[in-house]
Amino acid sequence: MDFAPSARAADLTERVRAFIRAEIEPAEAAYHREIAARRAGAGDPWEPLPLIAELRAKARAQGLWNLFLPAGHEGPYAERYGTDGGAGLSNTDYAPIAEQTGRSFLAPHVFNCNAPDTGNMEVLLKYGSAEQRERWLEPLLDARSRSAFCMTEPDVASSDATNMALRADVEGDEVVVNGRKWWSTGVGHSDCDVLIVMALSDPEADRHHRHSMVIVPRDTPGVRVERMLPTMGVYDEPHGHGEVSFTDVRVPLSHVVAGPGRAFEIAQGRLGPGRVHHCMRLIGLAEKALELACERGLSRVGFGKPLVDLGGNRERVADARIAIDATRLLVLHAAWKLDQGGPLHALSEVSQIKVAAPNMAQQVIDFAMQLHGGAGLSDDVPLAASWVTARALRLADGPDEVHRGMVARLELAKYGARR
Amino acid sequence: MDFAPSARAADLTERVRAFIRAEIEPAEAAYHREIAARRAGAGDPWEPLPLIAELRAKARAQGLWNLFLPAGHEGPYAERYGTDGGAGLSNTDYAPIAEQTGRSFLAPHVFNCNAPDTGNMEVLLKYGSAEQRERWLEPLLDARSRSAFCMTEPDVASSDATNMALRADVEGDEVVVNGRKWWSTGVGHSDCDVLIVMALSDPEADRHHRHSMVIVPRDTPGVRVERMLPTMGVYDEPHGHGEVSFTDVRVPLSHVVAGPGRAFEIAQGRLGPGRVHHCMRLIGLAEKALELACERGLSRVGFGKPLVDLGGNRERVADARIAIDATRLLVLHAAWKLDQGGPLHALSEVSQIKVAAPNMAQQVIDFAMQLHGGAGLSDDVPLAASWVTARALRLADGPDEVHRGMVARLELAKYGARR
Amino acid sequence: MDFAPSARAADLTERVRAFIRAEIEPAEAAYHREIAARRAGAGDPWEPLPLIAELRAKARAQGLWNLFLPAGHEGPYAERYGTDGGAGLSNTDYAPIAEQTGRSFLAPHVFNCNAPDTGNMEVLLKYGSAEQRERWLEPLLDARSRSAFCMTEPDVASSDATNMALRADVEGDEVVVNGRKWWSTGVGHSDCDVLIVMALSDPEADRHHRHSMVIVPRDTPGVRVERMLPTMGVYDEPHGHGEVSFTDVRVPLSHVVAGPGRAFEIAQGRLGPGRVHHCMRLIGLAEKALELACERGLSRVGFGKPLVDLGGNRERVADARIAIDATRLLVLHAAWKLDQGGPLHALSEVSQIKVAAPNMAQQVIDFAMQLHGGAGLSDDVPLAASWVTARALRLADGPDEVHRGMVARLELAKYGARR
Amino acid sequence: MDFAPSARAADLTERVRAFIRAEIEPAEAAYHREIAARRAGAGDPWEPLPLIAELRAKARAQGLWNLFLPAGHEGPYAERYGTDGGAGLSNTDYAPIAEQTGRSFLAPHVFNCNAPDTGNMEVLLKYGSAEQRERWLEPLLDARSRSAFCMTEPDVASSDATNMALRADVEGDEVVVNGRKWWSTGVGHSDCDVLIVMALSDPEADRHHRHSMVIVPRDTPGVRVERMLPTMGVYDEPHGHGEVSFTDVRVPLSHVVAGPGRAFEIAQGRLGPGRVHHCMRLIGLAEKALELACERGLSRVGFGKPLVDLGGNRERVADARIAIDATRLLVLHAAWKLDQGGPLHALSEVSQIKVAAPNMAQQVIDFAMQLHGGAGLSDDVPLAASWVTARALRLADGPDEVHRGMVARLELAKYGARR
Repeated sequence: MDFAPSARAADLTERVRAFIRAEIEPAEAAYHREIAARRAGAGDPWEPLPLIAELRAKARAQGLWNLFLPAGHEGPYAERYGTDGGAGLSNTDYAPIAEQTGRSFLAPHVFNCNAPDTGNMEVLLKYGSAEQRERWLEPLLDARSRSAFCMTEPDVASSDATNMALRADVEGDEVVVNGRKWWSTGVGHSDCDVLIVMALSDPEADRHHRHSMVIVPRDTPGVRVERMLPTMGVYDEPHGHGEVSFTDVRVPLSHVVAGPGRAFEIAQGRLGPGRVHHCMRLIGLAEKALELACERGLSRVGFGKPLVDLGGNRERVADARIAIDATRLLVLHAAWKLDQGGPLHALSEVSQIKVAAPNMAQQVIDFAMQLHGGAGLSDDVPLAASWVTARALRLADGPDEVHRGMVARLELAKYGARR
Repeated sequence: MDFAPSARAADLTERVRAFIRAEIEPAEAAYHREIAARRAGAGDPWEPLPLIAELRAKARAQGLWNLFLPAGHEGPYAERYGTDGGAGLSNTDYAPIAEQTGRSFLAPHVFNCNAPDTGNMEVLLKYGSAEQRERWLEPLLDARSRSAFCMTEPDVASSDATNMALRADVEGDEVVVNGRKWWSTGVGHSDCDVLIVMALSDPEADRHHRHSMVIVPRDTPGVRVERMLPTMGVYDEPHGHGEVSFTDVRVPLSHVVAGPGRAFEIAQGRLGPGRVHHCMRLIGLAEKALELACERGLSRVGFGKPLVDLGGNRERVADARIAIDATRLLVLHAAWKLDQGGPLHALSEVSQIKVAAPNMAQQVIDFAMQLHGGAGLSDDVPLAASWVTARALRLADGPDEVHRGMVARLELAKYGARR
Repeated sequence: MDFAPSARAADLTERVRAFIRAEIEPAEAAYHREIAARRAGAGDPWEPLPLIAELRAKARAQGLWNLFLPAGHEGPYAERYGTDGGAGLSNTDYAPIAEQTGRSFLAPHVFNCNAPDTGNMEVLLKYGSAEQRERWLEPLLDARSRSAFCMTEPDVASSDATNMALRADVEGDEVVVNGRKWWSTGVGHSDCDVLIVMALSDPEADRHHRHSMVIVPRDTPGVRVERMLPTMGVYDEPHGHGEVSFTDVRVPLSHVVAGPGRAFEIAQGRLGPGRVHHCMRLIGLAEKALELACERGLSRVGFGKPLVDLGGNRERVADARIAIDATRLLVLHAAWKLDQGGPLHALSEVSQIKVAAPNMAQQVIDFAMQLHGGAGLSDDVPLAASWVTARALRLADGPDEVHRGMVARLELAKYGARR
Repeated sequence: MDFAPSARAADLTERVRAFIRAEIEPAEAAYHREIAARRAGAGDPWEPLPLIAELRAKARAQGLWNLFLPAGHEGPYAERYGTDGGAGLSNTDYAPIAEQTGRSFLAPHVFNCNAPDTGNMEVLLKYGSAEQRERWLEPLLDARSRSAFCMTEPDVASSDATNMALRADVEGDEVVVNGRKWWSTGVGHSDCDVLIVMALSDPEADRHHRHSMVIVPRDTPGVRVERMLPTMGVYDEPHGHGEVSFTDVRVPLSHVVAGPGRAFEIAQGRLGPGRVHHCMRLIGLAEKALELACERGLSRVGFGKPLVDLGGNRERVADARIAIDATRLLVLHAAWKLDQGGPLHALSEVSQIKVAAPNMAQQVIDFAMQLHGGAGLSDDVPLAASWVTARALRLADGPDEVHRGMVARLELAKYGARR
């Protein structure tokens, strides 16, 4: 149970931290102003901002690129696209880096470490054919293209993945996709050219072999982004979350990842590390919120005292510190378990953090918002947006309730319970 | 301690309820689509929609107009502008009506019962001169104009109202206003033509007589809306919340309400009933959220069961019911205390509900959002917007912490504590 | 929805309050010392203390006797045994009196208003035959005897009352009782001479007509108190909670209350008002705890300030005040609903308060304990014992979870759910 | 940040676990029955039970003895009295052992690892003179004697240690002790022959050098145990918590540990590891409660289902698992920090766990109690007693609020705050 990062990871963490402080944080205000201006009519908010490309070039030049690449799976790509041209990192080693990137909305994009592209790259790395990797993985590793992941559906309770009803019917050497997805993150981006779609391919198979992962190029006829969806009023341009309809969408059978019926297995392999990434970023988000709270609380005066000395504010600072530290350790522990034995070895641990981290972050950020008064609700400080991120992650990748159910099932199984 | 509404109030409540169901709710989707389209460029979202004027005409024709008019203060206006042309309602009688209007974002506007216009009308009714009433109150009662209330300031902790620093200096028979306000609700509306501004007029006076309420016409030279502020990403068009600068703004001394130094007294008189209105609307908002949760929970199926039968969802339905009912009774009790003896008689009660109602609503709505999955975060259901309303009310009109401080102070005073 | 007590009830509440302050509170310390001494060997803690008889005589002389007697059911007993020789009180009128008696452990016993005797007297009043009333009810009204109520069983989940397995088999004109009960409150008292026992009499009947209420004299052969049970270490002498075995216990068929198969109906009638009494007493208990907290917090100094000015203590005072007031209103509302239409009319309301009141009280008392430091855990102040009372009431008369289930069921029924 | 125990520690943990299961748990019921019988008059509950001596002999024979001995401080005693005759363990290594011993009330006593003797032994080891060690430490290491620690005082807010008012005046080569302590744990035990007393020796010194630690033999004239104090009704025989008066108690000046004025330094050194021990035992206590909850929840049936499948019980199982695991990691982290740099290096971490662990344990145990129904409140299962332990630890060794204050102070110091 050694959570200490390796020397290489410690060095990368520090360099990422310094890069964010020196290069990204100073650019954030201008970035958000530009997005706001575009929203108000001064351009297309779904086009990437040049700033991102510039920052990416700098980061890549410093070897801070594709840091998420999973050790042992990075294959021939580590040399060309990997961090410092070297091998991938373990989950334990990547975790503190992800925490740093969580402090800034831009950082994951700058380092090419943003969801859902990371998860999609992992899927292609671990399960993709040579052809799939060449065509879809390399441009993603190179940040020449962007991708979306299409899982959740509007018409069924998608927290029960066996409900997924969008069809992928094999007809000869083609697959025909029909149905509707929503909350397909990244589909709004003008660079998005590929969707990975979870689809029902064999309703008669047992419940864990009915679905397939199908690669659908964005421009395939029949693919239509019906609308972009706001999250608590925010569209998250230029990536966004879309509702996508598929009408007689035909792709070659070779676009099915790892062959039909393996979507559950792939989703599981994809989601374990992805949830650790999300959770570590939430730790960073919460740390940032606590920093803002402390600074505001010490500098702003009301009723003759710094705000932090009023009422229960110091207790809330302490509770935030305790909650952040305990949750960080829990996430590191899950990362370490993943490294020890893979996703099946860490089912409870990953579900535990998926409950604990967003709820913790939501609470810490809420406190920071409250201490900021009206400013905390505005976009003058990044708290409102951070809160939305944390809140959305209580649903994305499985709602709290489903993860609590998994933790309980595994706990009760120790006493012989069958489910 | 009789909270039962009078026969007249019960009848009005039922008519309001029926009007909302028959006329307003069916129009909401189109309204929000239109606002969204305007935001996306198809018009000016700060212009009122014709729909509101149409609904207002219908409501007024049915006597459902200015229902907030406070009994005993409505003076000569009841006949011309009052509900059914009759006298005003007590707080206890208005409370269940306010609950009904809280179920819909449009309803308060349709019935001419929306903040901050109601509070501003109350100020003019109770403290305004005949001239002020004629010029400013009548158009508001008639919904020919809209108003803003300018209290919070960006540069000081405004929860401590003695901090307010915007100046109103008396120079001869003029008042010169200099400074900056923000979160001035309603200032974005194209019909807004008057601001009521709390200003520091005599820094040497004792702390409760330093400030004045100044009526500032929106088009006075030197008044500038610097920007509109988003709340959790939402601008609340066409009313909105603005940051407003005042540079050498000159108005006649007769624009000071009730004379210099009386802002605290006026604010207190304004805020007591206003907080009851807010809190009763939050009860309605929470009831609506619970309705949506029950309907979704019974109709959506996951893991072979209606969602409401999964995990702790039934317990959360019960907790929501208990919390709503207890909080409603608490708000009714505060309304009744206000009716018994006015704001000074109900200081603790009003602060109690100002803490209890938004926190309760936030929690109930959060549960309803969670049960809706992704839809709960989108604008397909009104939950995300409702949540923002409840969250903002944990800060607006005084943050939770200040109200808790007031409740504690009054509690400890029973034991001889001086503060 | 008028919760104001009648003039008679207001007068009684004030007289009860004054009696407790003048007569009971000054005697409490000596009472508890005597109980402690007896526990340590200086006497039998299960024998009533003479003090109680003395206080009862005084209270009765002042007309403060059997205040719980339910209006409309008190029949011929009101004159002889009722409060002031007059008619019974509505639930709404009794509620504030019960709150006062909740401030003191002795008070309910002094006024002959303690559970389970009140509930048993209600059962006999409402359902008992003339013979049963004469033999069992009159001595209870006169406080010449005490009683126990035997419902919960050790071997089944008694929160599901249909599980009750203790048998009462009709054999000719006798009933034969076999089985085991526990948490039979009052059975330890040396004056206890009658048990009311819920028993399975017809396993083939539908689930709500399988059980009967059987009156079993304490000295019937085969009745054996196996042991007295501690609650969080406390035995609650001289009343206590016992585990009772019944072995071939024979009583006449005439001892079945209202005839076989009616136990559910009787339990429901018994528990509605009983739960209101419990909950109002918890309000009083919480008020007392908050008083102690305020006094301690203002008088004790640490780190240079009164304790109440440290950390979040003032916020906790405010939260306690809000929670107590909201819960009191909720309980009054349930009492009023019971008065309007009886137990079936108030099923949700009674379950709501059964969840809300003990949880609220537990939390307020916990805060008061914490503010008292070590003293809060000792028996120098009545907080530890109060906490145990509140905690036990989260289980007694149905655990929180069962009541939440009832509230949810009735809420969802509004939307057509069948269960 | 490596929390994995060494091979030796892992082996000891497993042996301790097995010993508890094989030897201690089977004896617990008889032990508690005997204590209960003695309380009821069948003996002196303050005399040690022979069972403890028997179990101690077995444990010691297996080398499971004084496992708490701190590495680097155990000096010449490791060989004679240490675990397996070997060196002491680091905090990180001892932590999982302490967790195991927390599962049973007897275990800490059996392994000679119970508070306050462990803390007192640490004080003597780290700060005692050779003479003090020979006279007081060796019998404790040998379990021939027991000790008490006298810090908290009844008349001052002892959470602010500078308040301590009991005097220790130096007169020539003697120290004269006058004053009163309470919650002196262990003072009731018939083997208790020494008290370590924190006393005000120099009121004029700076606030951290005013107090001294004085060794007072139990039988010194003027020492009087005024009474034993119940915690939530329980006396914790045979150790107990006493109120002790000191009247002109004279001891040689050589009884002052490490010389006058060093009590704060000693307390700090004593309390860091002591708090880790307490917190790890609470982890074990919570694990035991969760085990009991799972077993009960799976085996007991209500409403046609195992209890664990009713309402939110599975979610509560999951929340318990998450809370226990997160808190365990937090405690291990604090232990590791203590090992890295001593108490001053881990001030925040130790205060963090002192808040987190008892609150977590209290909540998990409360859930387990609730799932057990009435049995959960009785002494048929060890939950009620466990709850009292957790609750008391929210006050003992510093109340939650003081530790939250410490965490906040250290957090805000990062931003330049002076206090």
